[in-house]
Amino acid sequence: MEVNRDNNLLARFFLCYETALLRFPLNGETHFPSVLDYLLELRNNQLSPHYKSSHSLFPNRTFFFKRGQRKMELHSSSSSFLVLILITLISATNFITICSLPIPLVTPLQSSKQRDTKPISKHSNKTLFTTHYFPQELDHFTFQPKSFNLFNQKYLMNSTYWDKGPVHHGPIFVYTGNEGNIEWFAENTGFMFDIAPKFGALLVFIEHRFYGESLPFGNNSYKDAETLGYLTSTQALADYAILIRSLKKNLSAEASPVVVFGGSYGGMLAAWFRLKYPHIAIGALSSSAPILQFDYITPWSSFYDAVSQDFKDESMNCFEVIKGSWDEIITKGSTKEGLGELSKTFKACQPVQSVWSFRDWLWSSYTYTAMVDYPMPANFLMPLPAFPIQEMCRRIDRFPKGSDKIDMVIAAASVYYNYTGDQKCFQIEHKSDPHGLGGWNWQSCTEMVMPMTITNESMFPTYNWTYEDDISSCNSTYGIKPRPHWITTEYGGLRIEQVLKRYASNIIFSNGMKDPWSRGGVLKNISSSIVALVTEKGAHHLDLRFATKEDPPWLIQQRNQEIAIIKGWIDQYYQDLKEVSS
Amino acid sequence: MEVNRDNNLLARFFLCYETALLRFPLNGETHFPSVLDYLLELRNNQLSPHYKSSHSLFPNRTFFFKRGQRKMELHSSSSSFLVLILITLISATNFITICSLPIPLVTPLQSSKQRDTKPISKHSNKTLFTTHYFPQELDHFTFQPKSFNLFNQKYLMNSTYWDKGPVHHGPIFVYTGNEGNIEWFAENTGFMFDIAPKFGALLVFIEHRFYGESLPFGNNSYKDAETLGYLTSTQALADYAILIRSLKKNLSAEASPVVVFGGSYGGMLAAWFRLKYPHIAIGALSSSAPILQFDYITPWSSFYDAVSQDFKDESMNCFEVIKGSWDEIITKGSTKEGLGELSKTFKACQPVQSVWSFRDWLWSSYTYTAMVDYPMPANFLMPLPAFPIQEMCRRIDRFPKGSDKIDMVIAAASVYYNYTGDQKCFQIEHKSDPHGLGGWNWQSCTEMVMPMTITNESMFPTYNWTYEDDISSCNSTYGIKPRPHWITTEYGGLRIEQVLKRYASNIIFSNGMKDPWSRGGVLKNISSSIVALVTEKGAHHLDLRFATKEDPPWLIQQRNQEIAIIKGWIDQYYQDLKEVSS
Repeated sequence: MEVNRDNNLLARFFLCYETALLRFPLNGETHFPSVLDYLLELRNNQLSPHYKSSHSLFPNRTFFFKRGQRKMELHSSSSSFLVLILITLISATNFITICSLPIPLVTPLQSSKQRDTKPISKHSNKTLFTTHYFPQELDHFTFQPKSFNLFNQKYLMNSTYWDKGPVHHGPIFVYTGNEGNIEWFAENTGFMFDIAPKFGALLVFIEHRFYGESLPFGNNSYKDAETLGYLTSTQALADYAILIRSLKKNLSAEASPVVVFGGSYGGMLAAWFRLKYPHIAIGALSSSAPILQFDYITPWSSFYDAVSQDFKDESMNCFEVIKGSWDEIITKGSTKEGLGELSKTFKACQPVQSVWSFRDWLWSSYTYTAMVDYPMPANFLMPLPAFPIQEMCRRIDRFPKGSDKIDMVIAAASVYYNYTGDQKCFQIEHKSDPHGLGGWNWQSCTEMVMPMTITNESMFPTYNWTYEDDISSCNSTYGIKPRPHWITTEYGGLRIEQVLKRYASNIIFSNGMKDPWSRGGVLKNISSSIVALVTEKGAHHLDLRFATKEDPPWLIQQRNQEIAIIKGWIDQYYQDLKEVSS
Repeated sequence: MEVNRDNNLLARFFLCYETALLRFPLNGETHFPSVLDYLLELRNNQLSPHYKSSHSLFPNRTFFFKRGQRKMELHSSSSSFLVLILITLISATNFITICSLPIPLVTPLQSSKQRDTKPISKHSNKTLFTTHYFPQELDHFTFQPKSFNLFNQKYLMNSTYWDKGPVHHGPIFVYTGNEGNIEWFAENTGFMFDIAPKFGALLVFIEHRFYGESLPFGNNSYKDAETLGYLTSTQALADYAILIRSLKKNLSAEASPVVVFGGSYGGMLAAWFRLKYPHIAIGALSSSAPILQFDYITPWSSFYDAVSQDFKDESMNCFEVIKGSWDEIITKGSTKEGLGELSKTFKACQPVQSVWSFRDWLWSSYTYTAMVDYPMPANFLMPLPAFPIQEMCRRIDRFPKGSDKIDMVIAAASVYYNYTGDQKCFQIEHKSDPHGLGGWNWQSCTEMVMPMTITNESMFPTYNWTYEDDISSCNSTYGIKPRPHWITTEYGGLRIEQVLKRYASNIIFSNGMKDPWSRGGVLKNISSSIVALVTEKGAHHLDLRFATKEDPPWLIQQRNQEIAIIKGWIDQYYQDLKEVSS
């Protein structure tokens, strides 16, 4: 049986790494077709379930560039390695790397059956939600005639538990959708379903513009910067504000308090929504939201250092084996024969065309596993054991001294790709984008600029990131420049403790320290009502998932704290309302 | 000597009244040329100092409409009156009414000589500020290629008093410019100059996009909705955020606290800036800012009720005379002969073409005088006495019983137009826009929708305002629809006390109750740090003006409170900074 794995999604994980290379400013003797065309072709192909690599616009083109003219700083030890990556990426037409938040893979699409095997909750997929559409305006911040064009913004509702009490309706819990189909996030935010009965809450999950079905220009939404230009976090927040206000009016629930929830990018949106629209949401649960992963706030190497630390914590041998494996793979895969051998060793379902595909496949397994290093078995795209990094390192450490590193890392990666042992071969190069995630590449090239370097302290090959290269490469790709300091200008983040302790209220920043994104999160209490709930053994927005029988006490405690805090906000709101009314 | 008064500015005062009429939805047998063309022609003409009415595009057109098909509700007693207004407005090519905040006339352009006759301060115009330009991006909330187009945003600085102490630079006081030339606001915000030495503060006054010299499309900025579309308060706030951050970096003053100041629309922007960008400004002094004049928050009749109340408070006879004068003027001016007589009675420098010009001229005098009903003599466009409404009513009350109401109201209006008695005739119909204020009409047709009705309780003719008419007429005018609920969605305002007492900090809302705009302001303390400083005898952002020898104790006290509060913010900021650094 072939593993029908979503390799494109995996590839998306390579946070700015390959993207930075793909965006590489090429000078001198360079044959470089429009990268935008290239990306668009890839995107279009991704949309086709029957995509084949022969669809490429430039299957036979050759790319040259003069190394000496590149702006990017290459560490001498890895320069040829990176040059190869570049060439490979450009010629690998069925491969696209996106500088992306990896959230989507952390809250993977699960069938209801998969989900229901574990959670305590009794929800079935059928009763989870109803689907609705809201006529949303294209541009809230300009008043050109076209700003008023409408698109259908999808949102989901569950009113099963909504208390329509004698005086006021119960609260409204809103999930501020992130970069993907909203169903996906709804199904993976079981916490909201679990607590709705306790609060008598209406649940609403709003899809982010340009994702899922909420496409302002239909199939042309990703056409170019003219259409994609409207894909921004500020517009998304305004969408949420407008939709919520309209919904409350239509439901005669204008007095109902709204609490926003979100994980990862959705968690950033939830926190920012509370900061920008405190008159619409009384509080926010912002889970695993790296709102400090911008500008110079968080050390740029923190993400990959954290991934590496997770492995180091299990076993130094494990860490060293992985760190040493990259050169071996690249060396072996540099010949056609070696590539063929690797295809067999990796059990690729089809012969792999590029050595970098192996690297990416492994890389994804480490980094995603670090994020979902949950203390209980979980259904990711495939079933995972509890503490999967421990299991990865256990497999590496089992090998006798002197074993082939490639065999060792494949064994480790198999925890992620094939824990149940059902898979006979792996789909290493073919990608698709079933959840409509393609917009993140755009977002990372405009406002979501999260600098990431990789130092020699990590288990990954070193990499240096610069603003100059990022600006230049995004300009090449999309014809626009990133605004690398915009997020901190619009939402803050610098000296956040000093700012927010004298301002704002009612935000929970929850983080699990196993999650490498936690390093860019808020990890300390800022004030009595802006609190950080940190779990040492937690991972990427673990708290938002459905409760399960295997939940450890610290997780149950974290969720109970969240419930108590949210209850406090709501009680205070109704108390204030009573005082105003009386 | 001819009164070279800016009648267009005066006309702007008619808050949504004529504008609503001009925007009147006409159905049926209607000849109605493009109102946009009409407005544009007017605007272009305003820009020309040598404009003559013969420049009109449609000097000889006739307009018909079927009254029965109008949507606007007309009070039976005034329907013919309004019908006449409509026809007159449409055919009066040198007259444009703008649904406007009247701030510009409250902080009028004064020569330095005029200003220096009164203030205690020693500033001369030459040392007030230096002029600078910042390359600002066109659209902060989209990433289309054209979003990145740059325009020169003007800002003024005064660094005379800036403390560049051993550890940190002193604070930065920023005026968030409103709808006009920034010099105008800088020169009329003497408070900032007066207190700068005390604080060792750098002063910065930033011009609002689309006003003064800060024109994103140069002379084409007001061309149509395609260009004007970028004139919004949200873009303006983002401009300020970006400019301030850049300035602080360039001046090596990143640790300096920023306090924002503003009056009227500028005061709204200052408050909203603190709400949206708390990480950039530690506090805001928001003077006479009607941030609650939107939606259904403040009764729609409050503004004209407040103007009327100012007159009633002085004398019921005064109020009744004014209230009774409108019909007399309209009746007399309905014939050519009567119009000629009125021109003489009003001492018009040129024969007046429309009876409505007399009405507007009087109307402006009452409403503006209510706003600038200051307790000391002031240089408005012309010198005004202390308590000018008292003087207006004194003049009316001096007339013997049975006198001609028209003579009486002219005598009253002369307080506003000719208190010194120098003027031999009045420029009643010719307008210009020397301060670049034309954009307010656009803003009022897009987001700054402040509903205003006039009831029979006021001294003005009754008028009914509806959202439907406003939307329809703005659509006719500009081809776009207002978003009447956008301001409260974006910035809040509904149940503001409940929201802000649990959120936000460091805002002073100052208001003088003589100012009719005060009714739409925040008049009660919300929390310990969001405070309302209300003076019963104060008028439109009186506190922001230069100190004078005639300042009454309550005004001195109000300003001292403001100084103490701002000092508290800054002290706290430095204390927090010290704690963070230590």
